[in-house]
Amino acid sequence: MDFPPLLSLRPHGADRDEEVAVEVPVALTVNGISQAVMLATPADLEDFALGFGIGEGWFMTRHELLDVEATPQADGIELALTVTAACEQRLKTRRRTLAGRTGCGLCGVESLAQLGSRRPAAIEAPPVMLERGALDHALSVLPTAQILNARCGGLHGAAWCRPDGKLVLAREDVGRHNALDKLIGALTRQDADVRGGFVLMSSRASFELVHKTAMAGAGLLACMSAPSSLAIATAGELGVQLWAFVREGRATRYA
Amino acid sequence: MDFPPLLSLRPHGADRDEEVAVEVPVALTVNGISQAVMLATPADLEDFALGFGIGEGWFMTRHELLDVEATPQADGIELALTVTAACEQRLKTRRRTLAGRTGCGLCGVESLAQLGSRRPAAIEAPPVMLERGALDHALSVLPTAQILNARCGGLHGAAWCRPDGKLVLAREDVGRHNALDKLIGALTRQDADVRGGFVLMSSRASFELVHKTAMAGAGLLACMSAPSSLAIATAGELGVQLWAFVREGRATRYA
Repeated sequence: MDFPPLLSLRPHGADRDEEVAVEVPVALTVNGISQAVMLATPADLEDFALGFGIGEGWFMTRHELLDVEATPQADGIELALTVTAACEQRLKTRRRTLAGRTGCGLCGVESLAQLGSRRPAAIEAPPVMLERGALDHALSVLPTAQILNARCGGLHGAAWCRPDGKLVLAREDVGRHNALDKLIGALTRQDADVRGGFVLMSSRASFELVHKTAMAGAGLLACMSAPSSLAIATAGELGVQLWAFVREGRATRYA
Repeated sequence: MDFPPLLSLRPHGADRDEEVAVEVPVALTVNGISQAVMLATPADLEDFALGFGIGEGWFMTRHELLDVEATPQADGIELALTVTAACEQRLKTRRRTLAGRTGCGLCGVESLAQLGSRRPAAIEAPPVMLERGALDHALSVLPTAQILNARCGGLHGAAWCRPDGKLVLAREDVGRHNALDKLIGALTRQDADVRGGFVLMSSRASFELVHKTAMAGAGLLACMSAPSSLAIATAGELGVQLWAFVREGRATRYA
C-alpha cells in the first residue's frame, strides 16, 4: 500500500526538477461494490478509508472495517474495504440513498429533497473549553506538521489538538475534506477520544468540514480562513463550536 | 433571481456584525429533471447554469439554454434550466452515465471505469502567446475584481484576461470550480472568444479546473497556488497551457 504522495517533475524551461502533490482518483469499494471515487493524495489511505466511511455514516464502530487494500489501476487506485456482514447489510439497505455520495458533503445528491436525510445528530458532548492561547499555539505548530505541504505546497492540513493547543496528530491531502477524513480515521484507529480536543484546519470553514466534524463526534472546529454562511448555520444546528480566521493573535468564534 | 451573496451576522462575543460569504445548496434541474446539487454562492446564477452545463457537456451552443429561473426553497435554491428539445433528448440518452455528476470533476462517479468517458477533447486552438508581464499585471488587478471577497474573504476568483494581462471579466464563488463555471458561462453568454486569452484563478491548480478550462475550449489556465500531479498530466493530455504559483514577479509553467 505504498504510493508516492509527491512526484518530481521538470517545469517548462526549468533547469531542475521540483516536487508536486499527487492527486489521483481513488475508487472506494465495500465488499466488492463500488461506492465513490474521490480525488485524493495517496498517503494514509487506511486512515482515509475509515474516516471517509465514518463521514458517510457507514460504520458504527471502527471494528466493522476489517481490512483495507489499495491496488494500483490504470486510471487511479482502488481502495477495497472489507467490512463485517452486519455492516454490509446496513449499507445495502441504505444503498439507494447513498449512491454516488462523496466527500464534499453534497456531491452526488441530485435534489434538495435528498438533503434532509444527510444530517448527522447534534453533538452531545460537553463543550470543549479552549485554554488561553491554545489556538495561537496550535497554529504556530501546524506548519511543521504539514510535512508534505512544506515540500511542494498545495496540500491542506488537518490537525487534532488538545484544549491547551498541543498538536497531537496531523494529516494532509490536496482536498481539505480528505485531510479531515484521514485525521478522523487515524484518531479512530487509535481509539482516541475525539471529544476532548479540537480540529484545526489550514483551509476555509465550509459546510462539509462542519458536517464531518459532527459525524466524528468532535465538538470544535477551527479554520485558518473564512467561514461560509452554511458552515456557521450547520455548526449552530449541530452544536459544533466553530472558529474561523484563526491567525496569529486573533480568531473569531461563530457558533 | 436576487439572492444576497453575503450575509451579515454577529460573531460570538463581538460588538458589531461582520459579513460572511453565503454558501447554499443549489439544485440544478433541466426541463424539470433533477441533475445535481452544488454548494455555491448565489450570485451570477445564470452564468453558473450555463457554465456548469458547458463543463458537464450538456450544451453544444449557448442557444440550447433557453431560460434559467432561480427559486428559493426551504433547503436552498432551485435553479431550473429550460433547454431545447434536441438538447433534452441528448441529455436523456446520456443520463445513465451522467447521474450524480457534479462540478468537482469526479464526484458522483462511482468507479474508475466511468472515468474514461469524462475526458473532453484536446484543445485545437493555437497556443496562447502571453505578452511579457501579462501574468504579473493580471495578478495585480485580480484583487480589485474580487469585490465580494474583499468584503469578507473566503471566496475564490476566476478572471478572464487578454494576452497582455488586461483583466476583462471576473466571477466569484466559495467554490473555485463554481467561480470558473460562472466565468465560462458569462463569457459564453457574451459570445466572447475564449481562445484569445487566459483564465486566472486565485486558487490552486486542480484537475477539475483544467478539465473545465478544456471543456470551454480555452487554452491557458494560470493559478496562484500549487498544481497537483493530475492537473499537470491532464493539461498535458488536453493541450491546456498550465501555469501555477503565479505570484508577484514569478510563475511556473508546467504544461
